Parts: sequence; C-alpha cells; structure tokens
Amino acid sequence: MDKSVDVVIVGAGIAGLVAARDLMRHGTEVLVLEARDRVGGRLLNAELPGGQPIEVGGQWVGPGQHQVLALIEELGLATYPTHTAGRHIAEVGSSRSEYTGRIPKVNPLALADIAQTQWRLDRLARQVARTEPWLAPQAETLDSQTFATWLQRTALTAEGRSFFQLITEAVFSAEPADMSALWASFYVGAAGGLDALINVTGGAQQDRVVGGTQTIALAMAEGLGDRVVLNSPVSEIDWDDAGVRVHANGTIVRARRAVIAVPPPLAARIRFTPGLPGDRDQLVQRMPMGRVIKVNVVYDEPFWRTAGLSGQANSDRRPLGTVFDNTPPGGSPGVLVGFLEGRHADVGARLDLADRRAQVIEDFAGYFGSRARNPIDYIERDWAEEEYSRGCYGAFTAPGTLTRFGPALRSTVGPLHWAGTETATRWAGYIDGAAESGHRVAREISSVLVPAVVND
Amino acid sequence: MDKSVDVVIVGAGIAGLVAARDLMRHGTEVLVLEARDRVGGRLLNAELPGGQPIEVGGQWVGPGQHQVLALIEELGLATYPTHTAGRHIAEVGSSRSEYTGRIPKVNPLALADIAQTQWRLDRLARQVARTEPWLAPQAETLDSQTFATWLQRTALTAEGRSFFQLITEAVFSAEPADMSALWASFYVGAAGGLDALINVTGGAQQDRVVGGTQTIALAMAEGLGDRVVLNSPVSEIDWDDAGVRVHANGTIVRARRAVIAVPPPLAARIRFTPGLPGDRDQLVQRMPMGRVIKVNVVYDEPFWRTAGLSGQANSDRRPLGTVFDNTPPGGSPGVLVGFLEGRHADVGARLDLADRRAQVIEDFAGYFGSRARNPIDYIERDWAEEEYSRGCYGAFTAPGTLTRFGPALRSTVGPLHWAGTETATRWAGYIDGAAESGHRVAREISSVLVPAVVND
Repeated sequence: MDKSVDVVIVGAGIAGLVAARDLMRHGTEVLVLEARDRVGGRLLNAELPGGQPIEVGGQWVGPGQHQVLALIEELGLATYPTHTAGRHIAEVGSSRSEYTGRIPKVNPLALADIAQTQWRLDRLARQVARTEPWLAPQAETLDSQTFATWLQRTALTAEGRSFFQLITEAVFSAEPADMSALWASFYVGAAGGLDALINVTGGAQQDRVVGGTQTIALAMAEGLGDRVVLNSPVSEIDWDDAGVRVHANGTIVRARRAVIAVPPPLAARIRFTPGLPGDRDQLVQRMPMGRVIKVNVVYDEPFWRTAGLSGQANSDRRPLGTVFDNTPPGGSPGVLVGFLEGRHADVGARLDLADRRAQVIEDFAGYFGSRARNPIDYIERDWAEEEYSRGCYGAFTAPGTLTRFGPALRSTVGPLHWAGTETATRWAGYIDGAAESGHRVAREISSVLVPAVVND
Repeated sequence: MDKSVDVVIVGAGIAGLVAARDLMRHGTEVLVLEARDRVGGRLLNAELPGGQPIEVGGQWVGPGQHQVLALIEELGLATYPTHTAGRHIAEVGSSRSEYTGRIPKVNPLALADIAQTQWRLDRLARQVARTEPWLAPQAETLDSQTFATWLQRTALTAEGRSFFQLITEAVFSAEPADMSALWASFYVGAAGGLDALINVTGGAQQDRVVGGTQTIALAMAEGLGDRVVLNSPVSEIDWDDAGVRVHANGTIVRARRAVIAVPPPLAARIRFTPGLPGDRDQLVQRMPMGRVIKVNVVYDEPFWRTAGLSGQANSDRRPLGTVFDNTPPGGSPGVLVGFLEGRHADVGARLDLADRRAQVIEDFAGYFGSRARNPIDYIERDWAEEEYSRGCYGAFTAPGTLTRFGPALRSTVGPLHWAGTETATRWAGYIDGAAESGHRVAREISSVLVPAVVND
C-alpha cells in the first residue's frame, strides 16, 4: 500500500514528532515512519508493581530547557520536582561523605581542584560557539585531543580527575577518552554550563513529568493520529532534487522532503540512493552512541528517607556510579534509579541478568544499607542492545570529527533534512535538544515547500 | 532463486576471496556475495591511454608481507619494483630539498627530533602486543589519547611534528587527531616498524604487481567460478546457532556459517536479526574509514626522470602530500600518482572535478615543473564516495575503542565470523592483512564444520 505525502519523517521520537506537528499545523501533509511498535525513541515508560509509570529511558527536565517545557505546557502535562530532601552520599577518592546542598565533602585541595577545573571548563564552553563550535578559535586544538587528555592536563589531583570521570560518565554515559574535548566543551556550553548539567535543583535533573516522559511523545502521537505508522523500519531512501522514495517494511512512501530523525549511527544504516556525500557519511561513521544500562529497583517503601538520606548518591569506585530517588510523587512504592554508564555498562552487559542484578543490588546496599537487598522489583534497560537506539543517552563526536565534518550535522542534502537531539544547538543530547531540532527542520521545510493545502 | 550452502561470504575483496578459496579446498560449499559488479573491494584496476592497467586503489606489496606474497606466487602472478632511481623531493618545514636514499635533507635539529620520535614510536609498537593490543600494559594510557596528543608530547620541533602529520596522512589517510595512540602503535607494530610502513625499498611500497593488484582478486574469483555472485548487496542476515539466512538483492541464501568480509563501518550497515551484542555494535560505531582521493596523472613520457628526479615527492604544505612515479614497467606513458589524504581529501572532495584537477596538477607542477601542466589523462578515485567502501585505506579505532571493544573485532557471534584487513594481526590495513584474515576465518570455520562433501 504505497503512499504519497508532502513530507515523510523517519523516527517517532521527540524530534520527529515535533517536526510532524509543526508541519501539520502549517497545512503540510506528513507521515511519520517508526521502526518500533511504539513512539518515544529513547523515552519509554514501564510499569511499577501497582501500575504507576516509571521511565526506563530519559526522564528529567529542568530550567532553561525552554523547548521541552513549552511542549509540556502546550500538551497539558505537568511536572513535579525530583525528590532531594535529605543527605546525599558521595564517594570520591578514598572517602565517603554525606552532605546536603550542592558540594560533596572532599578534602580542601581536591575541592579547590574541582572548582578550578570546572571554572576552566565553563570558560571554554562559553568560548565555543554553540551553533558552529567548529569555528571557535581553539576548535582545532580542542578537537585534536580527547576530553581525557584535557582533564589530565587541567585537573591536578587524583580526586579531581576521578570526580570529572564520574561526571563525564553521568552526563554522557561515555568515558572522557571517547570524545573530543571540543565536543565536551560544546555540550557543556549548549546546556549553559556544567552546573546546569549536573545539578538537580536548578539543573537538568530538577523536574519529572507526571505520567512519565514518554507521555510527551504519546500525546503528540495522539494528535497526529494515523499520520504515525508503527513497525515501519526504513531501510532505503531513494532521492533526487524532486523528492524521496522511502522504503519501509515493504511499503514505499513518496514525498517532496524527508526528515531523518534518528541518531547519527542509525542514520548511517539507512541505504541512500544515490549515496550521500563523503562529508555526511564520514560524520556518521564518527558519532558513536554512549552506553548505559538504566536500573530501577523497587522497594515496598523509600526506606532511605526515614534514615535521613535523599537517595542521591555518587561513587567513583562502584559500577553504579550515579543514583537518585525515583519514587513516584505519592511516595510509594520506593524506587531507586541507578545507572551503569560507559565502561561500567560494558562490564554489566557481559554478565547474565542474575549476576548483573546481584551486583547492582550490592551497590545499592553499599550506599543505603542492607534493606536495599530486599527489592520487590527490578526493572532494567540496556540501550546499547536496542536495535533502534544502539546506545544512550546520545551520540558524541570522536576527536577530529567536529572540525572536519561538523557542518554536515545539519546541512540538508537535496530533499533530506537532519533532526535529532545530536543536531541541537542548545541542550544537545536532551529532550529539549530533540524538540529544538524538530522545530528547526519544520522551519527549514516550511521555507521551501509551498503547502499543497492550507488549513487555516 | 534461493540457495543453500555450507558457508556464505559477504564481500569479494581479498579477505572474502581468500576465505572462500581455503574453504573450497577443504570441500566446503561456499558462496561469495559481492555488492558491486566486480571483485576486489579496495583493489581496482583502471586503464591508461593505450590500455595498460593502472591501480586506482591499493597498489603495493613489500617484504615481510608473507600472506600476499605467497598468494601472488601461488596464483602465478609476478611483481616488479617501484621506480626509485633519481632524486626525491621533500618539502618539510619551510625548506625544499632533493635527496637520494632514505633521509630527506632537513636541519639537524629536526632530523634528530624525527629520529627520536620514530625511535619512541617503534619501541611502543614493539611493546603493544599484536594479537591483543588492548592487553598491553600501556594500553589504557595510549587509548585515552589521540595520536596527535602523543606526537605533540613526543616530537619537539615544528618540523618533527609536521613530518609525522604528513607520515600519518600518508600511512592512514587519516589525521593524527582521528585515531587513538594505541591504534597507531598497534598498526606500526603490525607492520614491523615505521620504516617498513614508509619505505619504498625494503618497505610497504617496494613492489608492484604485474597487471595491477586487482588481478590477485580476479585470479581467485576465476578459480571460484560461479561461487562468486556479483551485484548482490547484503542487506539483512537472520541468524541463530544453527546458521544464517542472508538477504541479498531479493535472494535468500541459507548457510551454516557466514563470513562478513567488509570494512567495520559497512558491517554496521547490515541488519542482523537478532541484533548483535552491544560490544560488537559499539565497536563498529567507533571504527571509521580513512579518507583519500587517489589521482593518477598521465604524461606522454616520464619527463621527471630525464631531469634526474625519481618522481617520489612529499610535502607538508601541499594538499597532494605524497607522490610516486607510477609509470608502467615498459616506461611509457609517464604516470605520477598522488594522494589527497585526510583533511586534504575533505577539501578536495568539496571542489568540482575541474577545480580539483587544476589544483592537483598545480601541485604536480610545483614539485616537477611546468611540464606537469600538460597531462594526457587524469584518473582519480574518491573512495569515501564509494557506497561499498566509504573510505580508504582502512578503518581505524577512535580513542577509547580498542581497550573497551577490541575483543569484538574477531570474536565470532553465533555462526558469524569477521574478516577484513582491519581484523588482521600483521599488516592490518594492507592487502596482506586482508589475506591473513581470510585464512583465519577459514581455519575458524574448518575447525567447527564437518564438511558435507569431501573432495579430496
């Protein structure tokens, strides 16, 4: 059953759905092809015992994320604050401390080192232009080294380096060795600074969405109705200046324009005929996905709260380096969420489920005591195993990539437009960046397509 | 027309053809599926005016490359020495010199710096185990930095750094910033040292193959007969422990084992069902191809020889950084071959043919004088534009990749075996490495498959 529309959109994550919605409102006929049997991409709800939703994918929004906050409001959804009351746990260097506020207790020298390193990173982030980081004066220098090299040169204490490795894993689900220092700087700059990335209150982990973040996608998909087609993995796209023929699961969709709204390494797996220019192909060969296994462990109650703990914990010595209280707003059941990120995800993925579960729960017990050994449920998701994500949270650029191939991130190729959070100029890697990219491609297309039918 | 064989091989480059040949000899039924309308992969002959063959892909073999030299002998092919008589040209730093032998004339300080840097690189290369470089004691340190960082720390003069950037471009068709220092060290070690990589006499550029290197593939394909099927791009492979179903151009081939003998980033573009383990998928997301535009420019005669020049030239200031005399053995017509590598290929690819040709010929004129401005033919190949190579000479690992995902390079996944020069332990990236990998997968398969029919 072949179809013909104005614009075909590949991928029903936030980027694709936002683009579809904007275009539909301008009277443009759209069709969204989604490989999975669901919408939302890297946003996915699961069910807690008792039926409340819990996110196994992206889950937070925060101040400054104007695109996603506007979307949430427009869709009539609500947010609530992440639980933060109580003492947080930090294991950095050889010490363990409990603290409130934003600054873990570490020795003064380490603290000073962390502060000066952050100051230098934030300064760099401001200097790296957001829309075209490859044009920054220091771009070549930063792109020719890994973020690990930059950190090694900048942080002077073992604790400082350890802290920033932990931060990198938590923010990128990748190792400092994986990405160029230019990408790390750009990413920090796109969020408005390191504090915005790592803070709960005042930062990217401040708020949660009532009903789970996937409801953002579900609500948009509902508005799009049968313009969203599930179970339609796109394998090939034939294109010329007049338009595209998109092959998806035995069907061919013709359109004047196409939006590719999947992560760069997955965009690389679509066969384009004619083949894409070398610059674009080289770019997507060099933007791998981070790797994370997200684990929600459920308890009959949030027992740590009674002990005066917030449930927030970080460690540079445990595989489960980053933990938050993920209890639903009503306060029951108790939920702790932890992340195996980067190299810890590698090791975790090689274990079988029982061993991985045992290891994760041992880490929770290490943080919160032996009551953590008696969960009522264990809900995990390994995003690198997902055929249609192949990693999380997002893609990053390997060294030498952004300066050589950065412009190909958003440059259209004939009728092909590129969306997805990795193409954003603010909050790249976040739900907010995905929304930004959806709006951008809709504008790109509206400026060149005279709509076939105008609805308003 | 569906088929069933013991072993299906994806890709009719040297790796795939060698594997097919070895397996066939052991009485194993094989079928090689090749996406292109020709065999040879990154080896390809073109025709000079008058009809003699000239390589637009890989073209040299040298001492120590035992696998490919044995193959050449076995196939009844012959080699002849690369032309070296005369003075070579070197432009390093601000000076231009003409020299004979192996050592360009540069200032003594730069020469000492180049020597000490090479000494350190060769020492490192020896220390990095060839079969499992990720287990070397310095592996983490080397893999967390780019080769650019390592060079910056090691080479102390501007000329020294410039020389090694040129060398890196010439050897890898990539920039020092692109690859991890561990990959660079492994690659040098796999060849037996830097001299082996960069030398003509005594090194990887010593000899050429009569009839062009593609004849190695053509001769093997002839022996395999209708076991090689052209125009069969493989899009999907379904697999389980019992075997594979390979989808190629509307046909399904069933087999007990499959050999994937295409470069890593292209292997990533095959859809496997079930999806491959995260380790394997992350690996192929992080092994991009180098980028090179190879240019053969043809003259009525090798005029530079009369001027006492060898035709060999290098420059750290020209896009066309590496040049050789590529004249056929009979001495006519005169051919110069030059390479736009790494960043120079980026710039070259963005020009249209006429501008690129003009720029290349200006560089030849800069090296060899104004007679270079009157070619009788211009034969170029941009390998990053080729759908079924997407770059040359080979893939490399971005930082953080080899230590985290190195074992997935050769680890079988169910019935899937991985070949290709990037999986070799000696001369990775060369024809020799491709042959090694073909022999290896054939051994892997022969050790587990009892042949259905024994021919001898």
